[in-house]
Amino acid sequence: MPEQSPLELAEGDPFGPHNLPYGVFTTADQPERRRLGVRVGGHVLDAGAAAHALGSPYAALLDQPGLNPLMAAGRTAWRDVRRALTAWVTVPAHRPDIEPLLHPLGAVTMHLPYEVADYVDFYASEHHATNVGRIFRPDGDALTPNWKHLPIGYHGRAGTIVVSGTDVTRPSGQRKAPSDPAPVFGPSVKLDIEAEVGFVVGTPSRQGSPVELASFRDHVFGLSLLNDWSARDIQAWEYVPLGPFLGKSFATSVSAWVTPLEALDAARVAPPARTHDLLPYLDDADEEEPGGFDLRISVSLNGRVISEPPFSTMYWTAAQQLAHMTVNGASLRTGDLFASGTVSGGRREERGSFLELTWNGTEPLELPDGKRTFLEDGDEITLTAWAPGPDGTRVGLGEVTGRIVAG
Amino acid sequence: MPEQSPLELAEGDPFGPHNLPYGVFTTADQPERRRLGVRVGGHVLDAGAAAHALGSPYAALLDQPGLNPLMAAGRTAWRDVRRALTAWVTVPAHRPDIEPLLHPLGAVTMHLPYEVADYVDFYASEHHATNVGRIFRPDGDALTPNWKHLPIGYHGRAGTIVVSGTDVTRPSGQRKAPSDPAPVFGPSVKLDIEAEVGFVVGTPSRQGSPVELASFRDHVFGLSLLNDWSARDIQAWEYVPLGPFLGKSFATSVSAWVTPLEALDAARVAPPARTHDLLPYLDDADEEEPGGFDLRISVSLNGRVISEPPFSTMYWTAAQQLAHMTVNGASLRTGDLFASGTVSGGRREERGSFLELTWNGTEPLELPDGKRTFLEDGDEITLTAWAPGPDGTRVGLGEVTGRIVAG
Repeated sequence: MPEQSPLELAEGDPFGPHNLPYGVFTTADQPERRRLGVRVGGHVLDAGAAAHALGSPYAALLDQPGLNPLMAAGRTAWRDVRRALTAWVTVPAHRPDIEPLLHPLGAVTMHLPYEVADYVDFYASEHHATNVGRIFRPDGDALTPNWKHLPIGYHGRAGTIVVSGTDVTRPSGQRKAPSDPAPVFGPSVKLDIEAEVGFVVGTPSRQGSPVELASFRDHVFGLSLLNDWSARDIQAWEYVPLGPFLGKSFATSVSAWVTPLEALDAARVAPPARTHDLLPYLDDADEEEPGGFDLRISVSLNGRVISEPPFSTMYWTAAQQLAHMTVNGASLRTGDLFASGTVSGGRREERGSFLELTWNGTEPLELPDGKRTFLEDGDEITLTAWAPGPDGTRVGLGEVTGRIVAG
Repeated sequence: MPEQSPLELAEGDPFGPHNLPYGVFTTADQPERRRLGVRVGGHVLDAGAAAHALGSPYAALLDQPGLNPLMAAGRTAWRDVRRALTAWVTVPAHRPDIEPLLHPLGAVTMHLPYEVADYVDFYASEHHATNVGRIFRPDGDALTPNWKHLPIGYHGRAGTIVVSGTDVTRPSGQRKAPSDPAPVFGPSVKLDIEAEVGFVVGTPSRQGSPVELASFRDHVFGLSLLNDWSARDIQAWEYVPLGPFLGKSFATSVSAWVTPLEALDAARVAPPARTHDLLPYLDDADEEEPGGFDLRISVSLNGRVISEPPFSTMYWTAAQQLAHMTVNGASLRTGDLFASGTVSGGRREERGSFLELTWNGTEPLELPDGKRTFLEDGDEITLTAWAPGPDGTRVGLGEVTGRIVAG
């Protein structure tokens, strides 16, 4: 009996030809040579080598050490390259050329798939913002007055974005409980996660030229899971009045796999009903396609699922975030990454941070090995997700995982 | 009578051989060819061409389209290259080789001198923070409780940093006065400046490895003037709870010239006396060299000086900012830029923003052409500065200028 082809996937494989996320890999025999890859089932296809083998005109975009050239090539190129890749992994006549270029995922090392330009983090879940407001500002309104009028966001540190699988060192910093007479210094004792989705910009825009809601697909190349590690004690002491800084900047983990927007066409859903009138540049009531994505996220702590945040509940959409981020004339660069903010649903088991899951440590999670408030050294957090695909399929998002090590 | 050499500078020229700031220029006949230059008086020396002409081992660092390779080469290289450049522009025997490589400043176009990696903006002037606190939070303490314990900072947008001389388009955005029932959208009506000094990182650091106060000179390549354009109305509505975003991200102007730290050795001064005990990683009481810089800044509006902010009054030093920014393990990259925050002295005519100069528009400046609260279309702002140099000289900082154009 002949060996089964790695292109013959199990029924319902969430990384089938309807998905085809991009990543960057090296192999053990050429650890310095980064190559653009496309995930098919449990394998990664060497996309540049495949393009050369098949005489594809896209070899110049695919035979690259990173995704930036393809991302910069624009929407038409994204579509055409995706069509070509789909043919390469599905047309039986290509198998003799393609199969030798497939590497088992377990045999490759994955890297950050693109050079991050600017990184922006939003705050777009009403459930999350409400929870945080109740926890930190119990005497005031849970949402600030601006929350329903604009997607609140801030710039984060691009240089400390790391690929899934990178260990995260527990940060040290200043913290001060209200009862402390002065701040103390030491390793964070409230190390947390934020389960998020990051959108990466391909096509740049000129300074002075806002990007309208309807142009979202012309600029955004794809998305991936993102874990915005957060030291709540450091953050709480530093963030007034100019926002989070060292409580976030030590590390942000992204998946090794970027899912093209096109793979998620069947996952588009309408965002929650808006409770306030929106200014025209944010008003998506009449947009042709719904701005939400029905991504079902799972958060695992040491292999056990502790939360399932539903991305479909996000109040502000990625298209609104992009329109807002550029409405002042700010330009976009290839590699700009903007994240959704913590994804939390309305139920406790849908919350995307330990801050919310344990109500700032006052309601610990009951786990088989004891109670848990925030992250301990050795803990491993993994985010996974899937979305509805075409014809009843599921589209898997590449996982993002990270383990806490002592500082 | 022979023509005077461009290397024979007037007595007291602030851009003499004791200064030698770096920049990147193009000439009209080769507008695509960016070249590293060094300013000498009113000329720019083609540094790469000079290195080749003199057979210098530094040609590989200097024959470049930008400063990044030299910045990444580290402190020893910075010192050695500076020594070589000093010899090239001062030793008479080099004149026949050097003089043909000098271009009048008026004949070249200057560009952003390095690729900016991450951009961080601090808030380090006690006078500025106190003024802002009094204006925006008149019922509370002027300084937030953390202000004297850590240098407050936040990440800004690296992709919209522009070189001096670039026009600045008035941004549009949301604003809401307390009396407005809902936010309105339109061009900012409170467009402002922030007179700042930016420090640029040369030598990178590893994630997880904080940079101590004493290592400041190992990592920071130089400094330049910086204007952090700010739309106060947009900022006031958006900034709670996650800090400034669109009120700042439309443009930040930096000088075309980066002054090496070494040129400012004679300008080192002690910062103001500390009123609170500092945690060890920030405590600079026993540092070998004082952390302040005696830079005398001038702010001009349409050619008339409206303010003279003294950088020596900054409470937090650049070394403390660098130590703080990395104490959580955040890495540094070549091209990271961190700015001081608005420089304001204790007197009205030393304030570094219109917000403070006009007390949020309530005390207009009286100018020959009328009263002024914030910036109008067509206004041109220019920051200049000088510092004490060796032997009674002055070290000039390259100007940063920008004109407001309608959105």
